[in-house]
Amino acid sequence: MKKISLLGATGSIGLQTIDILKAQKEAFQLVAVSSGRNIEATKQIIDDLQPQLVSVQDAEDARRLQQEYPHIEITYGAQGLVDVATHPETTMLVNAVLGSVGLESTLAAIRMGKTIAIANKETLVTAGHLVMAEARKYNAAILPVDSEHSALFQSMNGENPKNIERLILTASGGSFRDRSREELQHVTVKDALNHPNWSMGAKITIDSATMMNKGLEVIEAHVLFNMPYDKIDVLLHRESIIHSLVEYHDTSVIAQLGTPDMRVPIQYALSYPERLPLQGGQPLNLAQIGQLSFKEVDIERFKALKLAYEAGRAGGTMLTAMNAANEAAVSLFLQEKITFVQIEELIERVMHAHNNVLLPDLETILHVDNETRKIVLDMVK
Amino acid sequence: MKKISLLGATGSIGLQTIDILKAQKEAFQLVAVSSGRNIEATKQIIDDLQPQLVSVQDAEDARRLQQEYPHIEITYGAQGLVDVATHPETTMLVNAVLGSVGLESTLAAIRMGKTIAIANKETLVTAGHLVMAEARKYNAAILPVDSEHSALFQSMNGENPKNIERLILTASGGSFRDRSREELQHVTVKDALNHPNWSMGAKITIDSATMMNKGLEVIEAHVLFNMPYDKIDVLLHRESIIHSLVEYHDTSVIAQLGTPDMRVPIQYALSYPERLPLQGGQPLNLAQIGQLSFKEVDIERFKALKLAYEAGRAGGTMLTAMNAANEAAVSLFLQEKITFVQIEELIERVMHAHNNVLLPDLETILHVDNETRKIVLDMVK
Repeated sequence: MKKISLLGATGSIGLQTIDILKAQKEAFQLVAVSSGRNIEATKQIIDDLQPQLVSVQDAEDARRLQQEYPHIEITYGAQGLVDVATHPETTMLVNAVLGSVGLESTLAAIRMGKTIAIANKETLVTAGHLVMAEARKYNAAILPVDSEHSALFQSMNGENPKNIERLILTASGGSFRDRSREELQHVTVKDALNHPNWSMGAKITIDSATMMNKGLEVIEAHVLFNMPYDKIDVLLHRESIIHSLVEYHDTSVIAQLGTPDMRVPIQYALSYPERLPLQGGQPLNLAQIGQLSFKEVDIERFKALKLAYEAGRAGGTMLTAMNAANEAAVSLFLQEKITFVQIEELIERVMHAHNNVLLPDLETILHVDNETRKIVLDMVK
Repeated sequence: MKKISLLGATGSIGLQTIDILKAQKEAFQLVAVSSGRNIEATKQIIDDLQPQLVSVQDAEDARRLQQEYPHIEITYGAQGLVDVATHPETTMLVNAVLGSVGLESTLAAIRMGKTIAIANKETLVTAGHLVMAEARKYNAAILPVDSEHSALFQSMNGENPKNIERLILTASGGSFRDRSREELQHVTVKDALNHPNWSMGAKITIDSATMMNKGLEVIEAHVLFNMPYDKIDVLLHRESIIHSLVEYHDTSVIAQLGTPDMRVPIQYALSYPERLPLQGGQPLNLAQIGQLSFKEVDIERFKALKLAYEAGRAGGTMLTAMNAANEAAVSLFLQEKITFVQIEELIERVMHAHNNVLLPDLETILHVDNETRKIVLDMVK
């Protein structure tokens, strides 16, 4: 029985994690959980899985929940996230919060030697050097939850990392893969949210359309697997069946495939090194699919991917500046305050103006993150 | 430094094994080697790799070689194969002989606890129960060399075999994959030898055209990986890029891919659990390939595959009868004494007439093997 803490239970990944925990009660126990403002969903989780500790965003929500559930410990806010992440009984933390709010609590859990299943890209992108250094120091395993990184991780099973020649991340190309740069000028929020293969949250669906999502994944792969950027490629693969591939120095390539279902990588992170049957899982039927297609990525067409490689190679606070600019810009786009192509433009302007600080500490990262969001807002005033 | 014995050095797999041993002299040492009647090729191997023991088919060839190489031990015939396989310094035997002649020598090596890299399908097909029982008893590892089984083996790396749901062997479909059963009536030996993806020996190229090759591989997979036939599927995949796939019970599928190059699985068996760089290897470029296609196998179209599943499920000497009938029939086809479709007909007739003996000993297997070849010759008289 693995004892689990979950940050971000009512987001897209969080809810799917809850589904798995409900289906696999003999394997996992939810000990502590954080959710945001969705109190109905939070109550449902409490009723279904009986956690010992629950954290919500607001003090007032916490007070009301405490009255309803007097036998459960209820907490809230930033300290609540740390309380959930560091619960003494927990051996594994699933970090499924959006954005950079999960950083401090994840570092706190790492320092207690807990295994981290990480679905939160920003933690690794902005503070990868801190996270991995602490993970090595405190002997905490960092397991990927993202489908691409899980695919890479599964394709490295039992292999000597020294023999890896190249990581190949597949990319569906997102909602606008068949449109030229000119056609991108007039796309709407509604168009952008219509992803061809995966059902995900709004932020990640927009990131998928700009391919910043793939850019963040390239950086994440660099951090998680300690691979130079020259050995991390992106391959367009419309069908999202091959989730990623690892090439070894004997030219052999190992890949992980499956029907697009985020529960597979989530459950793999939870059950690793074991595998559990997936309730209601849809086996892959390649004969039915018929064909898989592959195409090189045009890095000039997908400018955000190019910017992500640039930020990755620069390192330091450039990563935080890029990520915060992207979060702020995507938020402005979702509010229909800027156009789709302005997302890339804002990120590029921020990056060009940024004075990079290498090996920043957590305070510097959080400072750059805050400042960058303000800069982006000023830019569109 | 691994010390290697090689049976069948001058066949297709044998010559490619020699290429790898020459390219990787720091990793491997060829201690003992058997070849057939190609004495020039044998001399080249002696000059290049300086083995301590060499076995050829004929006594007269052995005598002449001994005069030319007085410092090397030269032997011949069936005993020669056993001498090579059981050389005291050898830790790994590569069995790359064609047909069933490698059986006794391989069992002898297993009883000395040597690791066996097995490229010889017939050994596992006809005597799989004996080979695997002895391998368990003497703690000898059996490693696949065939590209499909190597792909399965690589896709199981670090995994718990209990979690495997299904093995999926890919099949190019061979030379006649686009022809109907009616069109098969008039195909020639030359047509059949023109395989679209792999350059192999004549026997295996014909087996590929009938898909008996895939049938033998299904049986081999059953034996090597202890999987029931219901969990071993064959999938048509024209491009021969995905070499096979393993589906796990969480619906995750792991696959091994690469440009068709037999040196990859051969070297993997030699270097396992490590990987070595492949000299002159061609990295996979999926963007260049563009598309991979998949189709269900029509088991009525590929009758030999159906017969192989039937023989596999029957077990016992039915496997030897099927295999010997196939070898004899393919030989008759290559001599242009029967038509292509008669290969399947002869195998079917032999199987229907065969009195199956379950769990046969080696003597019974060899007896059935001999008798079946005679029966096939009688059938076409």
